[in-house]
Amino acid sequence: MSSYNLIVIGSGPGGYIAAQRAGALGKKVLLIERDNLGGVCTNVGCIPTKSLLNSAKHYRYAQESEAMGVSAEKVTFDLTKAMAWKKDTVETLRSGIAFLMKVAKADVVFGEAVCLDANRVQVGQEVYQGENIIIATGSSPAVPPIPGSNLPNVLTSTEILSLEKLPASLVVIGGGVIGVEFASFFASVGVEVAVIEMMDEILPMVDKDMAKLIRREMKPVEFYLSSKVTEIKKDGVLFTNEKGESQELKGEMVLLSVGRRPNLEAVKNLKLDINRGGIVVDETLRTNIPNIYAIGDVNGKSLLAHSASRMAEVVVSNLYGKGKQKMRYNAIPWAVYGMPEVAGCGLTEDEAKRQGREVLSATVQMRSNGRFLAENGKRAAGLCKVVVDAKSRAILGVHLLGPYSSEIIYGAAAIIEAELRIEDVKEIVFPHPSVSEIIRDTLYAIEETL
Amino acid sequence: MSSYNLIVIGSGPGGYIAAQRAGALGKKVLLIERDNLGGVCTNVGCIPTKSLLNSAKHYRYAQESEAMGVSAEKVTFDLTKAMAWKKDTVETLRSGIAFLMKVAKADVVFGEAVCLDANRVQVGQEVYQGENIIIATGSSPAVPPIPGSNLPNVLTSTEILSLEKLPASLVVIGGGVIGVEFASFFASVGVEVAVIEMMDEILPMVDKDMAKLIRREMKPVEFYLSSKVTEIKKDGVLFTNEKGESQELKGEMVLLSVGRRPNLEAVKNLKLDINRGGIVVDETLRTNIPNIYAIGDVNGKSLLAHSASRMAEVVVSNLYGKGKQKMRYNAIPWAVYGMPEVAGCGLTEDEAKRQGREVLSATVQMRSNGRFLAENGKRAAGLCKVVVDAKSRAILGVHLLGPYSSEIIYGAAAIIEAELRIEDVKEIVFPHPSVSEIIRDTLYAIEETL
Repeated sequence: MSSYNLIVIGSGPGGYIAAQRAGALGKKVLLIERDNLGGVCTNVGCIPTKSLLNSAKHYRYAQESEAMGVSAEKVTFDLTKAMAWKKDTVETLRSGIAFLMKVAKADVVFGEAVCLDANRVQVGQEVYQGENIIIATGSSPAVPPIPGSNLPNVLTSTEILSLEKLPASLVVIGGGVIGVEFASFFASVGVEVAVIEMMDEILPMVDKDMAKLIRREMKPVEFYLSSKVTEIKKDGVLFTNEKGESQELKGEMVLLSVGRRPNLEAVKNLKLDINRGGIVVDETLRTNIPNIYAIGDVNGKSLLAHSASRMAEVVVSNLYGKGKQKMRYNAIPWAVYGMPEVAGCGLTEDEAKRQGREVLSATVQMRSNGRFLAENGKRAAGLCKVVVDAKSRAILGVHLLGPYSSEIIYGAAAIIEAELRIEDVKEIVFPHPSVSEIIRDTLYAIEETL
Repeated sequence: MSSYNLIVIGSGPGGYIAAQRAGALGKKVLLIERDNLGGVCTNVGCIPTKSLLNSAKHYRYAQESEAMGVSAEKVTFDLTKAMAWKKDTVETLRSGIAFLMKVAKADVVFGEAVCLDANRVQVGQEVYQGENIIIATGSSPAVPPIPGSNLPNVLTSTEILSLEKLPASLVVIGGGVIGVEFASFFASVGVEVAVIEMMDEILPMVDKDMAKLIRREMKPVEFYLSSKVTEIKKDGVLFTNEKGESQELKGEMVLLSVGRRPNLEAVKNLKLDINRGGIVVDETLRTNIPNIYAIGDVNGKSLLAHSASRMAEVVVSNLYGKGKQKMRYNAIPWAVYGMPEVAGCGLTEDEAKRQGREVLSATVQMRSNGRFLAENGKRAAGLCKVVVDAKSRAILGVHLLGPYSSEIIYGAAAIIEAELRIEDVKEIVFPHPSVSEIIRDTLYAIEETL
């Protein structure tokens, strides 16, 4: 029986980073994966969706750039080629992870892992011994008990990424990040798209005013809010609309994007505390079994690839590094890579007020920004909202709607982590012209003091 | 004679920000402009070049996106339309500045300003009295004493922005930011371009390895380094090449981009200390005349729009705000918006070593980055280099070559300003997938410790 300092179950952005970081520190590491290296993120999540969304963006550019001097005829979108590009991206990143594991001298085993006890993990006929175990098994698309959800025209986010032909129309059930990104992709390449959301607004983490603007900008996508699907049929969806009336929507295909459930198969023999979100962990990601940690989607704390990676680092730092680190959740950025692009970090104004804070905030239109205007024209929509604690004067949240948002937002994470105050950020020089300047301009809109 | 708390001469990103900030604090302000509001940046600098470069980028996208699923026929670039879009952008921003001045209740006067003494400025027949004066008169393209530099086929960066027809070929004299951006634009829209640079590398502020890669990526642009132009003719340029041989380059048009000289006409009556770069100022941008300040290009300290704006804030803060602020130059980001895009902030490795610092650094290829790969493919070039002080462990410099660089770099300014150390930045969560993550990955390439 091989023994390891660390066994990591699951090779997504939580697991492979844990294996790489621990291996790089000289620990003997085993990484177990039941499917492909990279997990949901690399194979059927972040990466393939961003690849397809980028193709869709170029398709729109080719059609919409005439006013700025670029015209083209017969602009066509070829799903097969877009899928091939996506596949190539995914495979390249996957081999990148395999290479990282080699460099970190981490062993990789493929197969279904089952924890026998707190130190032993079985894969097929083999049993491996580990001083410490990290559960990084991720999550799977939830399939709600709606009649008809097993019909062949109903796909999850995983399945729709293998589509070979564009449908004429698509009904998306669930207006979270996944639903909105797919709606944006399909609408951009000419599919008729409708989104049905149970809550009164899409994208729960987004500032309400921005969410409204996102819906407007995603035209011609139709949004049905406060609506509950009652049945899926082979040519559409029945739902109760916001007025409480039964309504039918026709659609050749249905995407189910109503949430994700933790993958708990590997730990069924362990007496782990588990709640609705997943495996219960403390601030160091430790479970109730002292040598077992749970990171990423499986603990339900923050279902984001980069949260999983950071959790991996916290665990490895505490086990083998210098740190007595804790996982912090107050400055984790997020992004929605649709058209429009949206990103945020920290508290929305509503969240800050709910915490009982006194708040300063302002919202500035991006069309006042030189680069935004030069690249998008004066009718384009874009917003920046910044939320500041009125007492400490620290930046609490930055919220962006517009191009480059997903690349700008990490800086907000740095600003919030460093606990910079409004006057500190005003002393930072932002490059001109850049969309990023809008953050600084928004601080001046909050107050003009120098 | 009208009197003011503050008279600002020049309405570029130094002057109009000074007027706006002081006006917003309730001061009585006069802004004097001899041409158009917005100065070089808005009218014949940052903004129009970024507008044209964006058009060129879309032209390339429309031609080069087939592998990702987007094909188009008869892709054409229409300079007239691109110029009209650019003009619209410039005019919109210009009226934005006029509006800002109204809101700030700053008076605006058009005409050539001449300082009569330390408190009086004449414009035409009018004389205005000011307690304090800010000289923000900017700079103009330098025209070197090369025989033939006044021929009609020779244009400065100002003149080339009014071009009505693309030349077949262009020789760019000077491989600084302006020369490289125009070379990138014209080459992208099909003009045959050569760049002649006197120094042994283009873009003096760029890390040497990156500058080399930029030249490679700008193919088919030809670069002649360590080369000195001896004569401009009506169909090309004579120069001494790096071997010391005389060489001739044919070109329908010649762009002179060999530097800029400070605009000192307005201060000719004052006994200001002036050196080679421009008006001599201290850390608070004060000249040798105590109530006169010089900001922006005219003081030669940092020829960047955002430096000018920051200088304006330092002056206004010290005069009318809370601050005893000093102008700091160690965290001013810069960007070159060509194809490829390049940006940096802080010290290069060479600069840090020249300061006698012990340095940690690493360079990481962007093709290891998920978003970069998904959007650009595995043959695309991109680099991130980070320079860290080995003793204090503070981040000294971040250097980026690749898409989004100009939008990512402000975060490096925040990191350097906040004096974050390598371990602090490792604790910041960057969104996945984003090109910005490459900064964090580069820190792990410097050292794996957690």
